[in-house]
Amino acid sequence: MGLIVQKYGGSSLADVEKIRNVARRVIALKEKGNQVVVVVSAMGSTTDELLSLARQFTSDPDERELDVLLSTGEVVSSALLAIAVQSMGHKAVSLNGGQAGIQAEASYSRARIRAVVPRRIWSELGEGNIVVVAGFQGITEEMDIVTLGRGGSDTTAVALAVSLGAEACHICTDVEGVYTADPRLVPEARKLGEIDYDEMLEMATYGAKVMHPRAVEIGKLYNMPILVACSFNDSPGTLIHGGTTVELGNKVRGVAHDLNVAKVTVLGVPDRPGIAATLFEPLAQAGISVDTIVQNTSVDGITDLTFTVAQSDLEKASRIVEPITRSIGSRGCVTAAGLGKVSIIGSGMQNTPGYAARMFKALSEAGINIEIISTSEIRITCIVDGGKVPDAVRALHSAFQLEEE
Amino acid sequence: MGLIVQKYGGSSLADVEKIRNVARRVIALKEKGNQVVVVVSAMGSTTDELLSLARQFTSDPDERELDVLLSTGEVVSSALLAIAVQSMGHKAVSLNGGQAGIQAEASYSRARIRAVVPRRIWSELGEGNIVVVAGFQGITEEMDIVTLGRGGSDTTAVALAVSLGAEACHICTDVEGVYTADPRLVPEARKLGEIDYDEMLEMATYGAKVMHPRAVEIGKLYNMPILVACSFNDSPGTLIHGGTTVELGNKVRGVAHDLNVAKVTVLGVPDRPGIAATLFEPLAQAGISVDTIVQNTSVDGITDLTFTVAQSDLEKASRIVEPITRSIGSRGCVTAAGLGKVSIIGSGMQNTPGYAARMFKALSEAGINIEIISTSEIRITCIVDGGKVPDAVRALHSAFQLEEE
Repeated sequence: MGLIVQKYGGSSLADVEKIRNVARRVIALKEKGNQVVVVVSAMGSTTDELLSLARQFTSDPDERELDVLLSTGEVVSSALLAIAVQSMGHKAVSLNGGQAGIQAEASYSRARIRAVVPRRIWSELGEGNIVVVAGFQGITEEMDIVTLGRGGSDTTAVALAVSLGAEACHICTDVEGVYTADPRLVPEARKLGEIDYDEMLEMATYGAKVMHPRAVEIGKLYNMPILVACSFNDSPGTLIHGGTTVELGNKVRGVAHDLNVAKVTVLGVPDRPGIAATLFEPLAQAGISVDTIVQNTSVDGITDLTFTVAQSDLEKASRIVEPITRSIGSRGCVTAAGLGKVSIIGSGMQNTPGYAARMFKALSEAGINIEIISTSEIRITCIVDGGKVPDAVRALHSAFQLEEE
Repeated sequence: MGLIVQKYGGSSLADVEKIRNVARRVIALKEKGNQVVVVVSAMGSTTDELLSLARQFTSDPDERELDVLLSTGEVVSSALLAIAVQSMGHKAVSLNGGQAGIQAEASYSRARIRAVVPRRIWSELGEGNIVVVAGFQGITEEMDIVTLGRGGSDTTAVALAVSLGAEACHICTDVEGVYTADPRLVPEARKLGEIDYDEMLEMATYGAKVMHPRAVEIGKLYNMPILVACSFNDSPGTLIHGGTTVELGNKVRGVAHDLNVAKVTVLGVPDRPGIAATLFEPLAQAGISVDTIVQNTSVDGITDLTFTVAQSDLEKASRIVEPITRSIGSRGCVTAAGLGKVSIIGSGMQNTPGYAARMFKALSEAGINIEIISTSEIRITCIVDGGKVPDAVRALHSAFQLEEE
């Protein structure tokens, strides 16, 4: 009995029958006495179709216009879901990002939410409506439409839940929750009943696709419980929350992996202050997220610097880095694609030694060579050959006995 | 050298190549030194596809949600055309109805424009942009999206042209202009170089599909010259204007026809005040446009009353009229579908006798029976059997020698 925000992704809304299924689910939630706000993504492959239409005109369409174009996908879903709910005899209304009060910065294709002003949502809830909000989009001060980038609909949902003071935010998707590892790679992988924000953040950042880290971050900041659950059945899902009740028995919570990894090594970098900024600021400005950065101790004031980027960003990153390598007097750069990341994650690890050693041993026993290592307090990540990633995930899942409760 | 508003319909934007063609045309107009505002419809059959998607949930989708859904079609076109223009090296920006300042009344699916506040358009023109506006839509005071009903994009274009003080409004379509009759029925039909507002209003209202009467009406009210021209070539088109220079030689300007006609006859209606209102008010409220109304002189205080409606509205009209016929004590009603309308139109007719006689004679010589007759100052319309309409159009075109300049 309260206010619930549910988000449904594109695969849960891919066709008329699936939209009807979502309508039945949100109606059931309403009939239990809840006020319901539903955030929707674009149907199935709509976003890709719109994108490919735009790319028939130019390989690099203007970001403002692309945002206008792509935002229509979520608007279509929102209207259709409202119609589906109404066709079942319940009141519903669709709102686009601007109407829902999602105010965003004027940064096309990857805007951040500045504020949520959900006045209209409250008034529609007051009228007894199920409120369907088009996800992934916001409106700038100039009344321009912007999209929120990857994970945008998850972010819309959690931000709305926070600003409405919702009881919980449900992320409804095509998997049943968060698993100890990808079940497609590890058949023994176990669904987690709960996970804390920090662990989920690391899982999501290091490859678990189920939820976007941005949205987890907002949840963590405002302590909003997030339930990741399946759109197609009533299995209980995974609750992401503040962690006070998280069982601490097994200190590795899960294994995450990511196959979209490439590395760039800048050779013979003069070891003087400001070099890293010269290199990484232009990458950040281009929206390229740099992950692991490794720099060896310098010998004679010269060092090598290696960092990883998403493989899909490699070409763009090389174009930016190459001229810089010359200007800073390095010996140039080499790149390698086809890498992968495997990570073990668990908040119990941070005060307990020996996890790294067990991880390296398990990989070594599986015949897997480690290229780069990086760690956080609750995570250890190894960069390995992409082809070895499935074996690595299985080896780690087994070494840390994650199949056991 | 001035400001021109051009409107392109769905068939002119049906695919990527056609959108490129429109982009080249608006760029050419800009390069001649004009400021250019382009109003676009949804691509090809998009609107029908969205409508059929909605109807998979219910045969009678909510009008507010339908407006949200359908309005996305024009937004998609506007973004794609802006991208196409940019890909050819020119500046462009897309605006939706709300951003373009199209303020409309809160009447879903058939809103009228309340006001145009084109502040944003001026500022984008000032930046040197070709401004692409999504047609067919407006925004209410509540910030809800409404569509403008049939002819909505034409209406957007003419209203924008008026409020911007444009030099002219171009309606670019898949025909070359306004013809003396439908060239598919009459191969000798001649394209008119010009036509005055009133004639065009009658032509459009009585079946010429090239432009919607609402838009002509706004043009007339504000004396905005409207050029109807082909999107695919540079042939000169037809100028709709105030009529001072319209040649008056041939007093019938054209023959219009309409095959979407049905009639309803209410039998044995008591001839007392208020009966007509009882009948026609509920039809108007249901958005059914009643055309010709004929009532015979009453005999013994009883009369028959016949009116025509669009055949596509006949079922809805019957459902409304039947209970009323009982409540007013008439002998019930009968309906007939499959009728058609042929009209001759020309402002020279109004002070000259003999046109009606020549029309009836031409139809009679072609063996066509006239069911109902209605007239305005500049139009004579006969309702005939639908199957006879092509013959009727040809007979009238020939009788009034419209193939001659």
